[in-house]
Amino acid sequence: MADLQARLEAIAAEMAAAPDRGRVADYIPELACIDPDQFAIAVCLADGTECAAGDADTRFSIQSVSKVFTLAMALGRLGDQLWSRVGREPSGLAFNSILQLEHERGIPRNPFINAGAIVVTDALLSGHAPREFLGEYLRFLRLAADDEDIHVNEAVARSETETGHRNFALAYELRAHDNLHHPPDHVLGAYFHQCAAEMTCRQLARAGRFLMGAAAAPRLLSPARIRRINALMMTCGHYDGSGDFAFRVGLPGKSGVGGGILVIVPERAAIAVWSPGLNAQGNSQLGTLAIERLARAQHWSVFG
Amino acid sequence: MADLQARLEAIAAEMAAAPDRGRVADYIPELACIDPDQFAIAVCLADGTECAAGDADTRFSIQSVSKVFTLAMALGRLGDQLWSRVGREPSGLAFNSILQLEHERGIPRNPFINAGAIVVTDALLSGHAPREFLGEYLRFLRLAADDEDIHVNEAVARSETETGHRNFALAYELRAHDNLHHPPDHVLGAYFHQCAAEMTCRQLARAGRFLMGAAAAPRLLSPARIRRINALMMTCGHYDGSGDFAFRVGLPGKSGVGGGILVIVPERAAIAVWSPGLNAQGNSQLGTLAIERLARAQHWSVFG
Amino acid sequence: MADLQARLEAIAAEMAAAPDRGRVADYIPELACIDPDQFAIAVCLADGTECAAGDADTRFSIQSVSKVFTLAMALGRLGDQLWSRVGREPSGLAFNSILQLEHERGIPRNPFINAGAIVVTDALLSGHAPREFLGEYLRFLRLAADDEDIHVNEAVARSETETGHRNFALAYELRAHDNLHHPPDHVLGAYFHQCAAEMTCRQLARAGRFLMGAAAAPRLLSPARIRRINALMMTCGHYDGSGDFAFRVGLPGKSGVGGGILVIVPERAAIAVWSPGLNAQGNSQLGTLAIERLARAQHWSVFG
Amino acid sequence: MADLQARLEAIAAEMAAAPDRGRVADYIPELACIDPDQFAIAVCLADGTECAAGDADTRFSIQSVSKVFTLAMALGRLGDQLWSRVGREPSGLAFNSILQLEHERGIPRNPFINAGAIVVTDALLSGHAPREFLGEYLRFLRLAADDEDIHVNEAVARSETETGHRNFALAYELRAHDNLHHPPDHVLGAYFHQCAAEMTCRQLARAGRFLMGAAAAPRLLSPARIRRINALMMTCGHYDGSGDFAFRVGLPGKSGVGGGILVIVPERAAIAVWSPGLNAQGNSQLGTLAIERLARAQHWSVFG
Repeated sequence: MADLQARLEAIAAEMAAAPDRGRVADYIPELACIDPDQFAIAVCLADGTECAAGDADTRFSIQSVSKVFTLAMALGRLGDQLWSRVGREPSGLAFNSILQLEHERGIPRNPFINAGAIVVTDALLSGHAPREFLGEYLRFLRLAADDEDIHVNEAVARSETETGHRNFALAYELRAHDNLHHPPDHVLGAYFHQCAAEMTCRQLARAGRFLMGAAAAPRLLSPARIRRINALMMTCGHYDGSGDFAFRVGLPGKSGVGGGILVIVPERAAIAVWSPGLNAQGNSQLGTLAIERLARAQHWSVFG
Repeated sequence: MADLQARLEAIAAEMAAAPDRGRVADYIPELACIDPDQFAIAVCLADGTECAAGDADTRFSIQSVSKVFTLAMALGRLGDQLWSRVGREPSGLAFNSILQLEHERGIPRNPFINAGAIVVTDALLSGHAPREFLGEYLRFLRLAADDEDIHVNEAVARSETETGHRNFALAYELRAHDNLHHPPDHVLGAYFHQCAAEMTCRQLARAGRFLMGAAAAPRLLSPARIRRINALMMTCGHYDGSGDFAFRVGLPGKSGVGGGILVIVPERAAIAVWSPGLNAQGNSQLGTLAIERLARAQHWSVFG
Repeated sequence: MADLQARLEAIAAEMAAAPDRGRVADYIPELACIDPDQFAIAVCLADGTECAAGDADTRFSIQSVSKVFTLAMALGRLGDQLWSRVGREPSGLAFNSILQLEHERGIPRNPFINAGAIVVTDALLSGHAPREFLGEYLRFLRLAADDEDIHVNEAVARSETETGHRNFALAYELRAHDNLHHPPDHVLGAYFHQCAAEMTCRQLARAGRFLMGAAAAPRLLSPARIRRINALMMTCGHYDGSGDFAFRVGLPGKSGVGGGILVIVPERAAIAVWSPGLNAQGNSQLGTLAIERLARAQHWSVFG
Repeated sequence: MADLQARLEAIAAEMAAAPDRGRVADYIPELACIDPDQFAIAVCLADGTECAAGDADTRFSIQSVSKVFTLAMALGRLGDQLWSRVGREPSGLAFNSILQLEHERGIPRNPFINAGAIVVTDALLSGHAPREFLGEYLRFLRLAADDEDIHVNEAVARSETETGHRNFALAYELRAHDNLHHPPDHVLGAYFHQCAAEMTCRQLARAGRFLMGAAAAPRLLSPARIRRINALMMTCGHYDGSGDFAFRVGLPGKSGVGGGILVIVPERAAIAVWSPGLNAQGNSQLGTLAIERLARAQHWSVFG
């Protein structure tokens, strides 16, 4: 535990000195002006211990990391019938590709590419107003993180609504294939708000506890479903860099363009890392490196 | 151990009664006439114990399972420079697709799709005649399996040479992109022979021990490389069904169109299963089902 | 002239008896209920003579035939700078494909596929309210056809607005590539109204006179621009059936899913044909056949 | 006639002074060292008159222009049954793309892309040894050009055989789809020899007379088939630059990477032009420009 704390601090120090910090995503105007020099890492162990280093109490936009939480919600509510509307295979294409959708009759390849996540949100809207969906979503996050102080940044959500043309194209394409049951602007309104939730690294690591399957964690989903979400994070969690993340790190994870990554060490730990600069695949450059360092030092790999 | 034996026998009995056995691959004439009613399963535990059930001493064509062994050989000989010629990402396309190759300038997405495996074999041919490569390959298999009685079926290799037009197309496309250093007919001669190696399930499970990273297994590669091969098996080992296999089974594996699958439980076990009928993704239908049953019963999942 | 009249009547009689009439487009609800037994053909010769047969005074929805008129308007207003936003090559893909758009950075392949026509309408909206654009468009049609009695069917326009999800996807994709300068719903509002213009075959043939480059026709565009529009109609006028139409008929033409086709015999004639049933490529089945019959009988082919 | 001669000389003079001459194709080593400063143009009129300017008696490699002659031969021998093996639509992709082939089950889009021309040559080999095919091909060229002095450059044919990996990939892909009836190396041997035929601009213009459908020209094919070959040249004759050539020139033509282009003015003229430097679409840069100049000056456009 003292070892782990020292390790996190060493990693934070190394990252503070890193010359190549990647590029902050600029397609969401509200996020484009984030200071790229920030870095944070936090770990929750199975026994409940928590450690953190860097800017671990600074809030950031979780963006696509939210897809893990909405998938968990949808599996809890709809069960396996969700899989008739979205696949479970890596996409082999960039994260916002519309090509695949056209090729495969409107069934997104997996719930972690944008099209798939939009379908998941559409499924969660069933029988609910967008506002109710958001309430339920925030309750889920707060319960998972055991912290009421988690909110949506309205300015970021609005910013995405105004500039998210590609997501509108995906939503209309899904609609053209009858795989969107609500009007595109409703679904995307909910989706952009979900992505605009803000958390600190400490909160995010804590919110990830239920995915490590540890006894102490809140029981939000069955163990079988948790294993399966981890499998999807392993094969599809980093867009077109998923294979490389599995190769280098050997742990399931989910990244977001806000620079956050949630990584699970089954039965042992939940890790949250954040640094705003992204690599060519759209994943946090220093975040990925930090996770790789930590996993190697701790001998945390699902592959032995 | 007695439990495991009983479990394997129960699974073999269930599979013997299964009505839908998939379809035997018919594009390699020599393999098209295999009796689809066969089934075998074998397990080697970390402590060296072995169990098996079904036709576990019947030889079958390992086909693409061979790609794991040639990848291990190539990483041992060339190290990370191999990755300048082949990627580490799931392909998101059928196993013999030439589309991706054209799109991505002749760099196959990973070493387990045909184009990638052909590049690996080409790399192993460097400085060797095809015959020498084959000798080295068989020595590797025999050492891994601790069994000299492993051979190549020449009739199957010839059959593939005569009908493997798509593989020739891939090889010439690689050559057009300067990512094949030997003449296509040399490389494919070696490749078809490598695929035509025959093993029993007992032999294949034993040959997989080095990938579980157990102390008792022969040390053929560094632990870091072994973890990384397992990561690739997890994300790319079942063609366009890799995500689904990870989702359902939660273990790294590699399948072949001969109906064999090699599955690794890191630090605990190597499993070989065989049944000739394939599912829509080209993976053994009953083999996949049997592995799913066994993994669930044994609580063998890398995801907890 | 009496010969031509007799020929048109013979063709109309043959078409009335044709057993396979194709399928009426059903994706625009308002058009789905059109009686498929209708057929009309009309010809305007360079000297001003007009002949017609069948239901030549029945109005039909001109749909994509409108793309020829908006292209002519845009070339007249913007000149060659239009070509920085849309290409001049056949697409080799179905008419509403979004694939090509994603591949080619938001520049539609030509002005006759939906994405290209949406860009042309967007260009015409520049500095105009949608309502003004529509006024100008109708003035152009009425001037070309020398007939004030040409209108837009509001019910059809509304029907497309409600069901044209794919066109919304295209418009948002264009917007994501900065190749749409107005809000998608404005542009598509204008576009759907433009497509919902109704004309009779007599009117459409007359409206096509300016494209044959005959002295008697209204001079709406320079001869060089007219030749170029004809070239585009030849290579791109029938979606993914353009090559076949050129091969079988040898004349430039533009079809619409309402079942109309406008065909130009340079310096000699403008032909309009209409029959609601479509072939697999989305072009009028009997219309194509009738044009082929007429062109052969009259020795009307630009290829000698 | 004196006018035409003066015009050709003026064009040749303009082209001699042109600063941007394109790039000589370098993928066929034997062709890479051609002097890019050469230019020739020749015209045969319907009445038999001939004019030429520039290096009109210099032989060049006709390359893909040969596809027009083999298509004529195949239509003469097999008639419309050829169209069961090759399509008639523009490809919308680069000239040697294998993508389309994989997508469309081994039926090349048209006879002028490489895959389609390989199928045409395969069809002509039926019942013939490659040597007999070549004899028949040369007889056809010599008859069309009324000149016995037309030969194949063996060094160029050999050079393509050694470096034409992409064409081998296409041939094996066709074979994998059962759309190649002879071994790839036989078909490509014949194909590379066909492409390596050498002609002067004078010879090529004369060889094109039969395609203008003039009474004085040798009657090698029915008028209907001639019109249809012209239609294919219009829609597919310049790879992915076909639409632009039709737009700018308005005449059917076929280009080759040797820098030659054959253009037909139906019922009026056959034009051959040659300059080795190519534009981005693989068509002769100055050749295209020269044809555009000549067509405009002569008012030669099929579109009026």
